[in-house]
Order: sequence, then structure tokens, then C-alpha cells
Amino acid sequence: MAIHVANIFADLADTPEQEQVRALFNSEFVCIERIVSQFHSSPSGFWYDQAETEWVMVLRGCATLQFEGGELIEMKEGDHLIIPSHARHRVHRTGPDTVWLAVHIKPRE
Amino acid sequence: MAIHVANIFADLADTPEQEQVRALFNSEFVCIERIVSQFHSSPSGFWYDQAETEWVMVLRGCATLQFEGGELIEMKEGDHLIIPSHARHRVHRTGPDTVWLAVHIKPRE
Repeated sequence: MAIHVANIFADLADTPEQEQVRALFNSEFVCIERIVSQFHSSPSGFWYDQAETEWVMVLRGCATLQFEGGELIEMKEGDHLIIPSHARHRVHRTGPDTVWLAVHIKPRE
Repeated sequence: MAIHVANIFADLADTPEQEQVRALFNSEFVCIERIVSQFHSSPSGFWYDQAETEWVMVLRGCATLQFEGGELIEMKEGDHLIIPSHARHRVHRTGPDTVWLAVHIKPRE
């Protein structure tokens, strides 16, 4: 059996203008992604509005998420939270070399 | 909207005799768990044989997984791998204060 080990901190991007997203696992129900952010903010006025539920953790670095209504959530290494389906949110700001793990739980069709 | 932030490294167990498992998210299709291991080994001759696919990462510490047939997989911080459905495996050994993140993708019924 071929079991492949990869490291989540390998090949980090150094592209400040955009986030680097890499799928680590993808199936009918679940997508697991690594996201690397360098001082990233979502565009002003932009909101994520996702049909899926998302579980997200900051593995390295730090970030501030903003939820519609104004709530700001500060996240440091190891902090995790659940973003419910259709909870409108955006990335207010991340630090440098910020590595996220995101688990998207896709809605049942 | 109440968004709750928790830290994956909070309240680590110090119980060498058994693993501490905490569910962080649980739905019809997906279970996300934190597992804390202190010099843990699966019992001799015991094999996990899971219907679900598991994506697992070492967040802190180190571990060696053994797959049936003898293959030993050394894992350090940030290492992740996919354990296919029914791939028989066991924990050969972990270091102290080893924190895993496990995402179990449940089989479709």
C-alpha cells in the first residue's frame, strides 16, 4: 500500500497579492484545503457567502475574520471556529506567512 | 451571530495510559477530532480497520504509524496523510504531548 506523507508547511507561497489555495483532500462531501495568506484582506465590500459549512483553523500566523454585522474575530495559532452555511464573512486581515487549514463540508444535494 | 473560537492546544491531557479524543465538529458525513497522545501505542496485535476514510495530521509532537504488511510511517509536526478505508493500521508510537487532527469522512450509507 502506498501511503504518501506530505508536510503542510512545505512550499509556502510568497505572493502578497493573492492567497494560495491547495486542495489536500477532495471528495463528494468534503474538501480539505491549505490556504497561505501574506497580509491578505478580502476586497472591500466583498463577503463570502457559502452554501457549505466550513471548519477553519490558523496553523501559523494570525488573522482577523469579519462577520456581517461588524463582528471581528481575532485568530492566533491553533485557533479554530465553525463558519455556518451562509454566514457572510470576509478576511479583514492576516499576518505574514499565515497558514490556514479549511475543511469544507459540502451540502447534501 | 455567535461565532465561538477555541484553541486546539488548550486543555491538553496528561494521561499517559490512554489517548484523549475530543470531537470538534460532527455531522452526517464528517467528524473532526483532536487526539492527544502521550507516548501512546496501540495494543500489540491491534489494528484499526475503519469503514471511513481518514485524513490525519500531526499538529505537535511526533508519531509513527504502522500499516499492515509492516510499513512504518514516521510523522513530525505538519505531516499529514490519507488513510484509505479499510487500510489496517495502528499507532506504533507517539512522542510526548502529541496532538493530532483527524478528519473522518464517513461512508455514504
